[in-house]
Order: sequence, then structure tokens, then C-alpha cells
Amino acid sequence: MSRLDELNKILRKLQSDSPGLEASALISEDGLMIASALTPDLEETRVAGMTATLLNLGARAAVELARGEVKEVIIRGDRGYAVMIDAGRGALLLALANETAKLGLIFFDMHEAIRSLKKVL
Amino acid sequence: MSRLDELNKILRKLQSDSPGLEASALISEDGLMIASALTPDLEETRVAGMTATLLNLGARAAVELARGEVKEVIIRGDRGYAVMIDAGRGALLLALANETAKLGLIFFDMHEAIRSLKKVL
Repeated sequence: MSRLDELNKILRKLQSDSPGLEASALISEDGLMIASALTPDLEETRVAGMTATLLNLGARAAVELARGEVKEVIIRGDRGYAVMIDAGRGALLLALANETAKLGLIFFDMHEAIRSLKKVL
Repeated sequence: MSRLDELNKILRKLQSDSPGLEASALISEDGLMIASALTPDLEETRVAGMTATLLNLGARAAVELARGEVKEVIIRGDRGYAVMIDAGRGALLLALANETAKLGLIFFDMHEAIRSLKKVL
């Protein structure tokens, strides 16, 4: 199995394990897609760019607001959550969940996925 | 008691009720401070501007990532949380908490504060 296959397998496992988790992606800090399991309504390039922009602004905000080095950015909308977590090695993991998902469980499963992703990256 | 006194009182109560909550502010959507209870290391104008910028980008990201209308933006750094919640009437509530704070309790207390703030605004 190629590295990309392994990364995709970890993302698909994350989605099947977490109720309400609709899409996930591994994105480089500079806004390029590494691996993804997105729904057809989402456009890869825009998702990757927007996610990296948000994490970069989050990093500046964390410093400005004296919260140290950014680890996670979470957006909650009325149709669910977007959760971005620093995955190390210049990569970040994005997960999109619907409004029925439990934020605590999403974190738990994402951190487990990150441990698996780090072994492959 | 003036309206500003009442707003400040609600912010101070939020901080005394929530363990680990270090600072809070009520900010207009366009990045102007309405009322605040900040620590001396934080500069009002920059905090208000950064918070509004982040919520605006969060709003665009929520749409782009199919999460609907933005309600909350959360940044976790290695030194704690910055939580921004839409408070209605073009205002948003910012709370800064240290790393010992419990995110669930912060949400709970912030939503209670927002109910009180709405009565004054």
C-alpha cells in the first residue's frame, strides 16, 4: 500500500468511527492538499486554502491574545463544526462535522488519527 | 447605574464565576470595543480588531466549508483558549482563559453572560 493509500485509509477510518463527521483532510501549512476525504459539494483547492489561512490568522491571534502557540482552531456554525488541529511536520488535520456531532468525541478521534498519520508522514 | 457600568459588571461576574477565565470583552462586529475587562498586557484596540477580523474570516470559512452561519470561533494555544461567541445585535463576546480552564464550563458561563448582556444592549 502506498503512503497516500495509507493516509486516505486513516482519514476514512476517522470518518467511519466518529458519528456526524462528514469530511476530513490533511493539509500543508501553506494551503496545499496532502490527502482528503471530502463530500462532492466541497472544492479541494478552496478548502485547503481557507483552512491554512484560518490557521495562520489563528496563530497570529493566539500570540496577540497571549494564548501562546496555536494548536487548534474551531469554527461552529449553525450547520456544524469545522475543527483544525496542528498535526506536526507542517501539516494540519481538518474535520467537518454536522450539528449532531459531539465536539469532545471529535477531538478524541482526531488526536488518535493524528498519531496514526504521523507514523506515515 | 449606567449601561456601561452594567455591561462591565456582567463581564466581571463572568470572570469571577469561571475558573481560569482571565479576560473578557464585548466587541462590535466592526472591531470596536464596547466594554472590556482585560489584563494590563492586552491592548484594547488590537484585541478588538483581531477578534473582529477572526470572526469575519470564521464567517467566510463557515460558508466555504458548508457549516452555515458562524456562531463561535475558538482558538486553543499552548497557553489557553480564546473563545468568541456571536452575542447578537452586531456584538460578540470574547473570553480568554488559561490552559487549566474547562472549555465546556467557559461556553456555559459565556452563554449565560450573553443572555444578561442582551438585556442591557
